[in-house]
Amino acid sequence: MGRVAISLARRYYSGGGVALTADRYPWVTRAPHLSRIEDKHVAAFERLLGPSGVITEEEQLDGYNTDWLKMVRGQSKVVLRPKTVEEVSAVMRSCSEGKLAVCPQGGNTGLVGGSVPVFDEIVLSMSLMNNIIKVDPVGGNVWCEAGCVLEAVNTHLEKFGLMMPYDLGAKGSCQVGGNVSTCAGGLRLVRYGSLNANLLGVQAVLANGDILDCMSGHRKDNTGYHLRQLFLGAEGTLGIVTGAVISCPTLPTSVSLACLGLDDFSKVLTTLRTSKRILCETLSSCEVMDDTCMDAVANKLGLKPPLGSHKFYMLVETHASNPQHDGDKMDAFLQELLACGDVEDGTVASEPSKMNALWQIRERITEALSRDGYLYKYDLSLPHEKFYEIVHVMRNRLRGVKAAKTVSGFGHVGDGNLHLNVEADAFDQEILEMCEPFIFDWTQKNGGSISAEHGIGFKKAKFMGKYAATGKASLSTMRAIKTALDPNGILNPYKVLPPA
Amino acid sequence: MGRVAISLARRYYSGGGVALTADRYPWVTRAPHLSRIEDKHVAAFERLLGPSGVITEEEQLDGYNTDWLKMVRGQSKVVLRPKTVEEVSAVMRSCSEGKLAVCPQGGNTGLVGGSVPVFDEIVLSMSLMNNIIKVDPVGGNVWCEAGCVLEAVNTHLEKFGLMMPYDLGAKGSCQVGGNVSTCAGGLRLVRYGSLNANLLGVQAVLANGDILDCMSGHRKDNTGYHLRQLFLGAEGTLGIVTGAVISCPTLPTSVSLACLGLDDFSKVLTTLRTSKRILCETLSSCEVMDDTCMDAVANKLGLKPPLGSHKFYMLVETHASNPQHDGDKMDAFLQELLACGDVEDGTVASEPSKMNALWQIRERITEALSRDGYLYKYDLSLPHEKFYEIVHVMRNRLRGVKAAKTVSGFGHVGDGNLHLNVEADAFDQEILEMCEPFIFDWTQKNGGSISAEHGIGFKKAKFMGKYAATGKASLSTMRAIKTALDPNGILNPYKVLPPA
Repeated sequence: MGRVAISLARRYYSGGGVALTADRYPWVTRAPHLSRIEDKHVAAFERLLGPSGVITEEEQLDGYNTDWLKMVRGQSKVVLRPKTVEEVSAVMRSCSEGKLAVCPQGGNTGLVGGSVPVFDEIVLSMSLMNNIIKVDPVGGNVWCEAGCVLEAVNTHLEKFGLMMPYDLGAKGSCQVGGNVSTCAGGLRLVRYGSLNANLLGVQAVLANGDILDCMSGHRKDNTGYHLRQLFLGAEGTLGIVTGAVISCPTLPTSVSLACLGLDDFSKVLTTLRTSKRILCETLSSCEVMDDTCMDAVANKLGLKPPLGSHKFYMLVETHASNPQHDGDKMDAFLQELLACGDVEDGTVASEPSKMNALWQIRERITEALSRDGYLYKYDLSLPHEKFYEIVHVMRNRLRGVKAAKTVSGFGHVGDGNLHLNVEADAFDQEILEMCEPFIFDWTQKNGGSISAEHGIGFKKAKFMGKYAATGKASLSTMRAIKTALDPNGILNPYKVLPPA
Repeated sequence: MGRVAISLARRYYSGGGVALTADRYPWVTRAPHLSRIEDKHVAAFERLLGPSGVITEEEQLDGYNTDWLKMVRGQSKVVLRPKTVEEVSAVMRSCSEGKLAVCPQGGNTGLVGGSVPVFDEIVLSMSLMNNIIKVDPVGGNVWCEAGCVLEAVNTHLEKFGLMMPYDLGAKGSCQVGGNVSTCAGGLRLVRYGSLNANLLGVQAVLANGDILDCMSGHRKDNTGYHLRQLFLGAEGTLGIVTGAVISCPTLPTSVSLACLGLDDFSKVLTTLRTSKRILCETLSSCEVMDDTCMDAVANKLGLKPPLGSHKFYMLVETHASNPQHDGDKMDAFLQELLACGDVEDGTVASEPSKMNALWQIRERITEALSRDGYLYKYDLSLPHEKFYEIVHVMRNRLRGVKAAKTVSGFGHVGDGNLHLNVEADAFDQEILEMCEPFIFDWTQKNGGSISAEHGIGFKKAKFMGKYAATGKASLSTMRAIKTALDPNGILNPYKVLPPA
């Protein structure tokens, strides 16, 4: 599904996208100490990787230079496709000596411009490093290379009765290395936890080409600093993630999915609390979307709405080991919801095809909203009592702005993570200025985070100092770590940290 | 209970302990660039903290200079007891200017000599920073100061229907800051995950006195590097942890605990797999102990064995939300175990007093084994198929060594974490040399970790390069981070990283 969504979006954007280039970002200039790539470098890379490992043809470069949402278009002249960690090491050693900047790229499904070059950085595509190394069925771990596609790993794990601990809309394209580098969250974090919990090992190539091997994969390992955690959310700025060990939960033998219609956001929150209390250890997902999202999916993608018209819809899923117990708990949950009047209507599915149809609605919201124009997307962590307020605030704020078509909200209410969307016919500078930094200011004032799961990338880097790593110690500590690990700043420059 | 265990052990050791001092560790010398404390420093600290915040009396210093297992005795002349993060900041600013080394200390229940000075480092006791700041019952988070005692936080959380996500034998004394600094594991990691999963925020004072505030406590926050994770397992060498935000699971409404007797370790492993399959999402603990451990607890502490005599005993616990479902699953589990013949005998408890009696047996093993002499303790992560083999190996190896009384194993089999013990009448150099580095070599050769949850501290620091941070990139990366954050090396020196 993820793959379909992304290829659809790509088609759309290559027709009408805005393809912003660096001149749209006047606050960033190309780092003068970084070398420009020359023929001699290309020849050296071809010696290292073979001719098939080096792409320089203009038309092939385009996809690597442009991010999914067409917010950034880089000007890289070279894409490298290493097949082994040793090749990555040799590339980085060469880049370190030559002061050549590198932009690592996985499935290129990120939403903050982190995986494409800003200027002429070399693209290091991880797609050919896609071996699943091994599975430990007793411990429940998988070892894999960074270029493995999430869905492919998950399919492989099913043979062992295991599953990946996270699930993303982009699963058909996104890669494990990118998931690690962005600390991907997704749909089932409420149950299985973040990658901070589930990343048991990392292999990474450092700026100087050294291979950092933390792949033992013990569930408990307190031998010094937890280096693997350093690469979560670092977006390739501290090292090139080449492999990972992931802790994998047991595949559930019983899955149920309720779709609920509610007419008030306060009832979404009480339903969340009820789901935690009654479904408890079986609760695997608790999602919300508003009517604007449902309308977009129904009208633009032709997906059939599962319920009549409501202000809000929730998807509440259970993963359980005993079908009888699972059914009993879900019944008790629904009875309580109907008794207290929080929910207007609902439907429960346990057949895969019906559950899949419900999940399609949730997973294809971004595709639907971005189908006929440009989509401004914000990914906020907010206290529960403030979760949906920003949608109303932005609707009021954009009321007089004609180019703004809709403002909508959906997301992982169980984790306090809202995806806020502003839909426009095309990119519009006025809307951008109405949104930024206003949304970040509002989020900060209300105790939220300006990036819950999408990361900082290029797009939000300039806001880091003011809205994220607040207090001089946070930013200076991040800079100290960056300098310690990448003294020449060749790893994914212009990303994560704000310009000095 | 933890408090009782520790105070008993303290009493024993202050009579007959060995109280090793730095002259026992000839490979470490006092860092010559660090200043020695003078009267002017003490006077300055008294101005900062008031006279009650500064301890210099010889007899009061002893407890702060000596670790629980009496493996290290430092020679600190000053203990500081700050009450606020601002006071910690002022202390560190002063220490940074004066190049004075600091050893942060929580409950001082660590097992690797990490929380006591090695030479004359200033002890920074966190005990007076023990405020529980707030609880968010919807999100399920607690904000607390570093000096909060684990059991006190847990008791407070019960009022909100929440619990701490980890449980340790030392819960009556150990502090949250120490738990963070050692990435404490404990009895329920198999269900609730490690502190990598559950630490949502940290406040720390850096070497230069800057306050690093990452206390927002969002479940998802990808705004730059995950700095909070840096303090997990850093044992105070990168900063003084002064506060934490912990994610807290819902208190179970139904708890069951099975005690099983088994005659073969391979059956322990099949029972682990069966427990994961049948108890699945309700499994909260899966522990094992051998007959030597059971005998020690029975004979030395007078605790009544719950079953007849077996080679191995397992404790398998469930945390569930529905008593009927919990009982059904536990019944199905026991029926399968009896049917397949893996388990010889068993008993199930669900009344708190009976469960507590069973847990006492498990939690007091170390106390029992160390009651009549010196205990060599090793804390290993091992692949399941190798988990218990090292106990046999060490029994053979120590057969001719008279001073060695018993070799035993117990631990968190669900997490692959073995606690290996060698009991002796008193500290004996020959036994030490038979154990180290042999056990570390064996562990490394068999794909294990030489520190699962106890950390590196002072005792294992010299082994880091060879057995833990292997490959030059691991150790050099750790050193680069240490240098970046603590350029003068004043934070808990001689710990975690090996001597240069």
